[in-house]
Amino acid sequence: MLLSSEVQSASNIDAPTRYLELPNQRYAYRRFGSGAGLPLLCLQHFTGTLDNWDPAVTDPLATDREVVLFDNAGVGRSSGTVPNTVAGMAQHAFAFLDGLGIGTCDVLGYSLGGMVAQQMAQERSGIFRRMMLVATAPRGGEDVMHLEKPSLARYIEDPSLQGYARLRKIFFAATETSQAAGQAFIDRLAQRKEDRDPPAGPDVAAAQMAAFREWDQFTGQRFANLANIRGPVLVVNGAHDEMIPVVNSYWLSENLPNAVLLIYPDAGHGALFQFHESFTRQAAAFLASDSPLAPY
Amino acid sequence: MLLSSEVQSASNIDAPTRYLELPNQRYAYRRFGSGAGLPLLCLQHFTGTLDNWDPAVTDPLATDREVVLFDNAGVGRSSGTVPNTVAGMAQHAFAFLDGLGIGTCDVLGYSLGGMVAQQMAQERSGIFRRMMLVATAPRGGEDVMHLEKPSLARYIEDPSLQGYARLRKIFFAATETSQAAGQAFIDRLAQRKEDRDPPAGPDVAAAQMAAFREWDQFTGQRFANLANIRGPVLVVNGAHDEMIPVVNSYWLSENLPNAVLLIYPDAGHGALFQFHESFTRQAAAFLASDSPLAPY
Repeated sequence: MLLSSEVQSASNIDAPTRYLELPNQRYAYRRFGSGAGLPLLCLQHFTGTLDNWDPAVTDPLATDREVVLFDNAGVGRSSGTVPNTVAGMAQHAFAFLDGLGIGTCDVLGYSLGGMVAQQMAQERSGIFRRMMLVATAPRGGEDVMHLEKPSLARYIEDPSLQGYARLRKIFFAATETSQAAGQAFIDRLAQRKEDRDPPAGPDVAAAQMAAFREWDQFTGQRFANLANIRGPVLVVNGAHDEMIPVVNSYWLSENLPNAVLLIYPDAGHGALFQFHESFTRQAAAFLASDSPLAPY
Repeated sequence: MLLSSEVQSASNIDAPTRYLELPNQRYAYRRFGSGAGLPLLCLQHFTGTLDNWDPAVTDPLATDREVVLFDNAGVGRSSGTVPNTVAGMAQHAFAFLDGLGIGTCDVLGYSLGGMVAQQMAQERSGIFRRMMLVATAPRGGEDVMHLEKPSLARYIEDPSLQGYARLRKIFFAATETSQAAGQAFIDRLAQRKEDRDPPAGPDVAAAQMAAFREWDQFTGQRFANLANIRGPVLVVNGAHDEMIPVVNSYWLSENLPNAVLLIYPDAGHGALFQFHESFTRQAAAFLASDSPLAPY
């Protein structure tokens, strides 16, 4: 039985999916938790839906603030087509926040979502108070989401790996400990039984992949545009991320004027899920700070 | 008036200097603070003495444990000559710990001291429970302490800059905010008025510089020896360290199997002093963890 939308659960295991209906667009979202903090907008990874947010990450953060999960256009149960640029996705995220009446919030931008968050911060400097950019890359980054390279293709092209089993291989490092953490992550995602999004199909993947390729392009001095993002940022990654290698996080750290860098060992793209206790503790401390400076 | 050695101050502003007398060696040290934690051995930077430890870093850490500051051989008021290898310095640090009867402790190895800490961990795997390696480099690192390069030589060779004024230029980033933090650091160091070490002379600098050049050398696969250090490590640096560039911290993070990396913005070699509130909070959380894993 689905929860009534009046009963707000503070867990992504059973928080009801809601819908924001705009004249030309419907956005599926979940919004749960409460507290003194600003809402935390969570922007999702390549092909990810509301159901790819690990409750071990979202729920602890929902104890001090509202956590807002969001399907961008064409993803999950949101209407429309997936934009083939990050800027197009940012426009939808603005429309969503505007529709909810959220003028300023915090953000957790994960992978593709971290690019959308950067784009939004470039376009509206006051949109985010504090930003967390996890396993992502600046515009003009390196080796971003090249699923055709051998280290990833061996899993992508393996017909014996489907769905979550493939996710475990590509999101976690090739060690026993990281793969075990990946299995625990998958088990947590599977805790949500009802009111689930449909998985993303090939059209979603193709448009998002086009957005990555467009994000590779830059003009002028590489990474110079990061100087425009002056608010506090926490950059997080796993040291052994094959999907968006850690060098991209180094560049964010070196070129954002006000960013702390936090890198986890024995972990890949899913470091925040593997070390969810540490990540949520660090994220909560970062978000709790009122300082204009990133260090916390 | 000096404090009596019976009165233990929990601040490096006035903790008395003590002496460990061994048959062939005298070591000057300070030991202050108390609590449930293991003692924290602090290993100092190039030409640094007991008086170069910022009370804003040592004192908050001394609220939960003993902090042990130590002049290696030939430095400050320790007898003997400065070894010209990191391994030689590690031998003295072992003799010091053995002399105090400390079999296992935590360590804060800063710059040169971080190399000594790595060497010690390689030689005695049980010596450190948790290690913090700040603004340092692995054996075989890159661009380590090249004071002759233009970005540093302009300060080293400027006769108008002496002592602390020079330290501020080379330990802090070339921004107004970082230089202001550098001045605050210097002001804190100057709070200690009596019972001070003599500053290190050119012989100390020459031997320590020889140790850096020896530490540049490596055999076999670069950084492969870091796999031997399996205990939890926190690697910390400033994103704009000119003395031991941040790439060396990246290599530590990527090659140590169990290390969290924490990088501060708008900061150089002295990031831990510039962001002493954040650093001591993070360090205390790291040291408080009993996990076999580094994330905290």
